[in-house]
Amino acid sequence: MASTTPNTHEPNWQSITAERRAHLDALIPAEWKLDEGFKSSLPADGRLLQADPVRKSGILTEVELEITEKCSAGQLLLRLACGEVRSVDVTRAFCKRAAVAQQLTSCLTEHFFSRALERAQYLDDYLQREGKVVGPLHGLPISLKDTYCLEGIDTTAGYVSFLKNGPVKENSALVNLLLDLGAVLYVRTNIPQTLMTGDSDNNIYGRTLNPHNTALTAGGSTGGEGALIALRGSILGVGTDIAGSIRIPSLCCGLYGFKPTANRVPYGGQISGIPVGLPGIEPCAGPLAQSLDDIELFMTTVLNGETWKYDSTSISAPWNNNPDNSRSSLPPPPARPPWQYFTLSPPPDHISASGEPFVPSVAKRSSPLFTGPLPVPQDLDIFTKMAALHNVRQELTDSWRKTFTEYNLDVVLAPGAQNTAVEHDTYGWPPYTALWNLVDYPAIIVPYGNASAELDPEPMVMTDGVQPNYNPEAVNGMPCALQIVAPRFQDEKCLAAAKVIDRDIRA
Amino acid sequence: MASTTPNTHEPNWQSITAERRAHLDALIPAEWKLDEGFKSSLPADGRLLQADPVRKSGILTEVELEITEKCSAGQLLLRLACGEVRSVDVTRAFCKRAAVAQQLTSCLTEHFFSRALERAQYLDDYLQREGKVVGPLHGLPISLKDTYCLEGIDTTAGYVSFLKNGPVKENSALVNLLLDLGAVLYVRTNIPQTLMTGDSDNNIYGRTLNPHNTALTAGGSTGGEGALIALRGSILGVGTDIAGSIRIPSLCCGLYGFKPTANRVPYGGQISGIPVGLPGIEPCAGPLAQSLDDIELFMTTVLNGETWKYDSTSISAPWNNNPDNSRSSLPPPPARPPWQYFTLSPPPDHISASGEPFVPSVAKRSSPLFTGPLPVPQDLDIFTKMAALHNVRQELTDSWRKTFTEYNLDVVLAPGAQNTAVEHDTYGWPPYTALWNLVDYPAIIVPYGNASAELDPEPMVMTDGVQPNYNPEAVNGMPCALQIVAPRFQDEKCLAAAKVIDRDIRA
Repeated sequence: MASTTPNTHEPNWQSITAERRAHLDALIPAEWKLDEGFKSSLPADGRLLQADPVRKSGILTEVELEITEKCSAGQLLLRLACGEVRSVDVTRAFCKRAAVAQQLTSCLTEHFFSRALERAQYLDDYLQREGKVVGPLHGLPISLKDTYCLEGIDTTAGYVSFLKNGPVKENSALVNLLLDLGAVLYVRTNIPQTLMTGDSDNNIYGRTLNPHNTALTAGGSTGGEGALIALRGSILGVGTDIAGSIRIPSLCCGLYGFKPTANRVPYGGQISGIPVGLPGIEPCAGPLAQSLDDIELFMTTVLNGETWKYDSTSISAPWNNNPDNSRSSLPPPPARPPWQYFTLSPPPDHISASGEPFVPSVAKRSSPLFTGPLPVPQDLDIFTKMAALHNVRQELTDSWRKTFTEYNLDVVLAPGAQNTAVEHDTYGWPPYTALWNLVDYPAIIVPYGNASAELDPEPMVMTDGVQPNYNPEAVNGMPCALQIVAPRFQDEKCLAAAKVIDRDIRA
Repeated sequence: MASTTPNTHEPNWQSITAERRAHLDALIPAEWKLDEGFKSSLPADGRLLQADPVRKSGILTEVELEITEKCSAGQLLLRLACGEVRSVDVTRAFCKRAAVAQQLTSCLTEHFFSRALERAQYLDDYLQREGKVVGPLHGLPISLKDTYCLEGIDTTAGYVSFLKNGPVKENSALVNLLLDLGAVLYVRTNIPQTLMTGDSDNNIYGRTLNPHNTALTAGGSTGGEGALIALRGSILGVGTDIAGSIRIPSLCCGLYGFKPTANRVPYGGQISGIPVGLPGIEPCAGPLAQSLDDIELFMTTVLNGETWKYDSTSISAPWNNNPDNSRSSLPPPPARPPWQYFTLSPPPDHISASGEPFVPSVAKRSSPLFTGPLPVPQDLDIFTKMAALHNVRQELTDSWRKTFTEYNLDVVLAPGAQNTAVEHDTYGWPPYTALWNLVDYPAIIVPYGNASAELDPEPMVMTDGVQPNYNPEAVNGMPCALQIVAPRFQDEKCLAAAKVIDRDIRA
């Protein structure tokens, strides 16, 4: 007879996750471990990055520090292609640095250093034997958000209940493409439970800390990438973005992060726990990096990689290196976005199955999505509601299209958020990034300047239960950012404008 | 007090539609009218085209016959651009020919000849004054399926109930683009009630006849274009296709018809009576013409026209003139397509409002959509069903992608249907075209050969209540066709292969 009584011999979620963390910790070689003495020497105020902890750990050699700190991805690829550096050495340098970053900020989920080093050795042997590279990303380590699948490796999307699924059997489409282009994959990076908060915190892999200030969030949902790349444990990372998930960690961690038009970068074959094929905002994949050149390298290489061969859901059009330029002027503000569109499909529940609790940012999740004014009554029959919400969204999209064409705009300069990185579990709903998902416009975060308690001493307390407070002392010195936005499919123009702006603001 | 008794003073649907037809008939100048004597001289067997009725009508001058019969669109554009012919003369020639075609086959819905001639005069004046063309389609008349909107003109999608909406206030996106490119718009063309049958027949504009044989269907839903272009009343027409609606009229009428990857040609701003924003197959826009060169002219001109400025739903990527070529071999057959995907959203009802009856092809519509085996139970809750059907469709799409990549295929050569044009109201469900909508692959109809009662004398009677019979005498001599199919977004490769095949089969 079937019983509904829980089987007391089955391990509870706490022991399952503790075991997983111990397993991953054991995969870090002993000589890459930070000792307790070093840990206790870390700055008490949480401002890790300025204390240069990776160098001080003594774990990386001078050459490894140079590889991970001084080169752009493009420069590394040139050195790899001409045999000046070997992929095993580059890969080992980033594996070591990622291992240190993990111990400092919990930025990783699954990692597979020995598999990466084998792959690098294969590529080195290939180059030596054949006298040519496998592809334009030959030998370059690339990090991936936890939702990307690699054959033989667990993908949990941060849900305890997914751990029982075991290793996945197929690579994500982008993983196959990156491998064919010659990349080395070595780590996956941390995310929020449900993927829908600005705090990369879940019950399996823990909470990712911001390396600029560990008392603050690294952002989400691609927060692991944010912390890892800020510590230069990766030179190029891939995230996904449905309301800001690439751009929020970028602006929190002082990085460049690009959300392209949906489906230009292959998105297919990920495990996110979110059902596909339902109406609503389309998520999209894109890069995070320390430079615009590396963002552009990723986009050109991937989009010229015949994405239709890898992903039948991708929009396969080559990168256009010569976008047109228009003149610029000042447009009027747009209408209020119909956030309600985000609520069309019921949220999935993969949490109750394992008995794990909500993490704090999920438990307190509050947003303006269900509060008025709602453009469409919530209780319409589902097909009528879908069509009505589609029309409301279409009106917004058309008004933005007309704004760009009538005012002859190249790009819009906007904030990426009303805040920098903020205290854990307070990021709230991100309207400044989510707007561009609603209209599917490419948008890039460009880091610029820093918060200053001296220049902006006045605290601001928010009372809406959604947005974070401004606490001058807490966020003092944190990176600030611009967001640069172009119309749908004008990804090339978005990056071209970002390069001009990036050059000028640093001149 | 409100009364539910019908207002007997309101005209019934019969008088409304009779009035509309009389109105349109009166817009045809008297000197463009076929007289009764001529009509009675038309072939009794319905084989209009071979009797050359346009020439024999005496309505077109020799120059007008030459303009409409001897030139490709590209050649006409060259002659227009250098001033060798005037747009008013070209436009008048096609208006006269369209008026004749309308009287022979009921291929038009709304037509606006004087407005077109004014536009042509404007373009002629512009060219003379400025010494340059307005755009790459300067002065060329282009015909549009009835679902495209032009400001100031009624758009009914064939529903009597839509007549009361009056003239529309905004152009469709493609209409704005075509006008900016320099085109002249002069007619809209007939469609089926509901747009979902292979018979272009509705209670406002009547039934379009096939000019090859008026006893047979011209196809649907872009059937008016099929008949009009076959009679050379248009040199380039634009249709839409969700299960074969561009390709079926093309194969029925002996034309080239291209269904591109969805949204490459701007689709936005049409009136079809079908709600937008619901999950399901995406309809797409594309050209019909008498030559592949003209199909290619349309695609290159429109796709290089910065479609993002006109339609926020379009996938704005320029036409690529240099697609790669692979080798070809023989692939295995694919899995059974999940036709059920077509049934996801409830069908709209715009018919009962006016009291008009179903036309015969709608009344008898039968299809295998709801018969087994169904991949997903019909009674699942709607979100579960959407996700499940999405996954089934994705499996099919992936299997086709893998077939193309593993066998290194450029294109697949397929039939466009198991039949030619058939007797009215018997076309049935079109699996050979609908498959490529399900996977969103570009597909083009290339006319080739003719049915022969002598070579294929054996009749075939279908007993499934869905597919048409083969009746050798009825379809003798009707055009046959190939369908050439390429992977999603490989539209350029599809046309390039079609050109090679078209050249070789005619050599």
